[in-house]
Amino acid sequence: MNNFVFYSPTEFVFGKDTEAQVGVLVRKYGVRKVMIAYGGGSIIRSGLLDRVKESLQAAGVTYGEFGGVQPNPIDTKVYEGIDICRREQAEMILAVGGGSVIDTAKAIAAGVPYEGDFWDFFIGKEKVTKALKVAVILTIPAAGSEGSGNSVITKIETLQKLSLRVPELLRPVFSIMNPELTYTLPPFQTACGIADMMVHIMERYFTNTQDVEISDRLCEGTLMAIIKEAYRIKQNPEDYDARANMMWCGTIAHNGTCGIGCEEDWASHFLEHEISAIYNVTHGAGLTVIVPAWMTFVSRHNPKKIAQFANRIFGIPESEDLEEMALAGISRLKHFFRYLGLPVNFKELDVENPDIERLADSLHRNKGELVGNYVKLTKEDSKEVYRLAL
Amino acid sequence: MNNFVFYSPTEFVFGKDTEAQVGVLVRKYGVRKVMIAYGGGSIIRSGLLDRVKESLQAAGVTYGEFGGVQPNPIDTKVYEGIDICRREQAEMILAVGGGSVIDTAKAIAAGVPYEGDFWDFFIGKEKVTKALKVAVILTIPAAGSEGSGNSVITKIETLQKLSLRVPELLRPVFSIMNPELTYTLPPFQTACGIADMMVHIMERYFTNTQDVEISDRLCEGTLMAIIKEAYRIKQNPEDYDARANMMWCGTIAHNGTCGIGCEEDWASHFLEHEISAIYNVTHGAGLTVIVPAWMTFVSRHNPKKIAQFANRIFGIPESEDLEEMALAGISRLKHFFRYLGLPVNFKELDVENPDIERLADSLHRNKGELVGNYVKLTKEDSKEVYRLAL
Repeated sequence: MNNFVFYSPTEFVFGKDTEAQVGVLVRKYGVRKVMIAYGGGSIIRSGLLDRVKESLQAAGVTYGEFGGVQPNPIDTKVYEGIDICRREQAEMILAVGGGSVIDTAKAIAAGVPYEGDFWDFFIGKEKVTKALKVAVILTIPAAGSEGSGNSVITKIETLQKLSLRVPELLRPVFSIMNPELTYTLPPFQTACGIADMMVHIMERYFTNTQDVEISDRLCEGTLMAIIKEAYRIKQNPEDYDARANMMWCGTIAHNGTCGIGCEEDWASHFLEHEISAIYNVTHGAGLTVIVPAWMTFVSRHNPKKIAQFANRIFGIPESEDLEEMALAGISRLKHFFRYLGLPVNFKELDVENPDIERLADSLHRNKGELVGNYVKLTKEDSKEVYRLAL
Repeated sequence: MNNFVFYSPTEFVFGKDTEAQVGVLVRKYGVRKVMIAYGGGSIIRSGLLDRVKESLQAAGVTYGEFGGVQPNPIDTKVYEGIDICRREQAEMILAVGGGSVIDTAKAIAAGVPYEGDFWDFFIGKEKVTKALKVAVILTIPAAGSEGSGNSVITKIETLQKLSLRVPELLRPVFSIMNPELTYTLPPFQTACGIADMMVHIMERYFTNTQDVEISDRLCEGTLMAIIKEAYRIKQNPEDYDARANMMWCGTIAHNGTCGIGCEEDWASHFLEHEISAIYNVTHGAGLTVIVPAWMTFVSRHNPKKIAQFANRIFGIPESEDLEEMALAGISRLKHFFRYLGLPVNFKELDVENPDIERLADSLHRNKGELVGNYVKLTKEDSKEVYRLAL
């Protein structure tokens, strides 16, 4: 087991009607003026925005509004948010939405007190040393951004999709999570969220670090719970307990609970970021295309942990042929993704002829000569993974 | 699933040589004067105390010393600590040790800024509204106190063993955890720690709350990891990875990771507290006497979750007779405890004729008419549990 730091200071307030506590929580963290950030307006139609404002008003908190954040969030929206937060002197950004809104909120939070271009942080030119507070009311369980210090933003001009990680400053101070708010998510978006959280775990689980039994068990337990609850949600999208279990799985998939002491991989995420940056597909759907292809590729070189996954998650019997075990597990995983209505190859993703040269060029330009850790992918390897996803 | 709050703000710094970071961490949290609290002196003999002082000095932190905290910590030591901290104007108590030292440090932290008697907090007469900071260097994985806001103290005059829970103020700001520091623990103490962390999980796992799949899986996964690593540690006490996995299991057993959204039980802990208060036995050894007895008793009335435990942890085959499944699991658990050298009845605990009337009287005087939740124990029930442990 490697040395590690586990630091998850976010206060998670979880359950029915918890959004009514937002005003009190904002005040608890010493804030009197927030900027409410949100996406396409579903929170207006559902009445959630009104309930949030009511709670803020009752607690004597004033607020501004910043809507229109879109999936695969972009830098231009961040600049816009920085301007409005400065103008209105917001002390906290309250993200009401899913990963895109929260990631945008974090980028704005870092950008407001910084005199230069916030993109400096994403390209590693500058370090974040100060930021506005971020808080969350989560409506889409998927990205885990409600419990992480990460933000992923795409620069629209160059289609660079880069991530920033500043746990100490960008983690939400609190995250309100009411599973009822997820009832109305369209099945495809629910499924993409499930894929996203599963892959967050798998990026940590597929490691060469030895003797990480507790990490393995937590990863496997969370994956098993996700799979079980996914079937129940598919049957009944308004099953509170299934939604509740799923929502919490999405958080612990990415707040550090899973993967402690492991060298993590993240190649699948980086392979996918190139796809969604260029073809603007939903991140979760891009992942279910890439992950089985990546698993197939790495099973040729290093099948051990993929075989363990197959055995412990899907009950594939142990055998001496680890690659065979691995492939049987990958087949079950694809079957599960398809059951949820998710694509498992480029064609099903509606990307008929992906430009594999361009994807691989961009990936290795952004991420270096070798990508990932479980198997370190060269550019040729990455092309092979993309080809396996055709 | 019930509504819940998950809040674990402690920064856990885990791994080899991490105690060398203590000075830097103390300064990071804005402190310049600490009181080092410790136990019987093993940290002097091992050289740990010297290494801690060196790191503090290098960071420009001044310190006082407060040694001699004993297992099953007592109120008189807390008063002593409050005095010395006030006199030396400590801003933080750095507990170097296990649960007893940390619990004492927390009680002192609450007592220093309070004008009245710190015991007021434990009997519920007053609420903690201010406290010194607490930080930890953990040497005994067991109590989980390094990640909790709880403290258990015994009032020596009345032998009342009571607990206080103030997550927002008494959780350590950081906890340093170096598994190497646990190599020299005597086998019995290692085993008692293992029992303590297992029961922390079981108190949460044995719940009537329905549909808590993610909580169940995290509890089960952690228990399975503990059992696996316990065998390895028994074989080789200096197996770093086994010690590392075990140490982290002890923390997540009690920091809220396990048991989210569940109504917890805690009857076994309360039944045991009476034993260790009166007979001064080691808490973990008291637990392995009480828990199988408690499980046997509740299996008569509510076997469902005990049967699931038997099936998922020990592989007892599913059957229609849930009580039979449960009893088979309890038998396997006792076998495991015995393998570790732990007692599973009063005789093996060297308490030949426990005063069951007195234990039950005191329990229900301290905890009310009904104790626990999975099965609510009357005084007659509690006596029956004690009898089953004979």
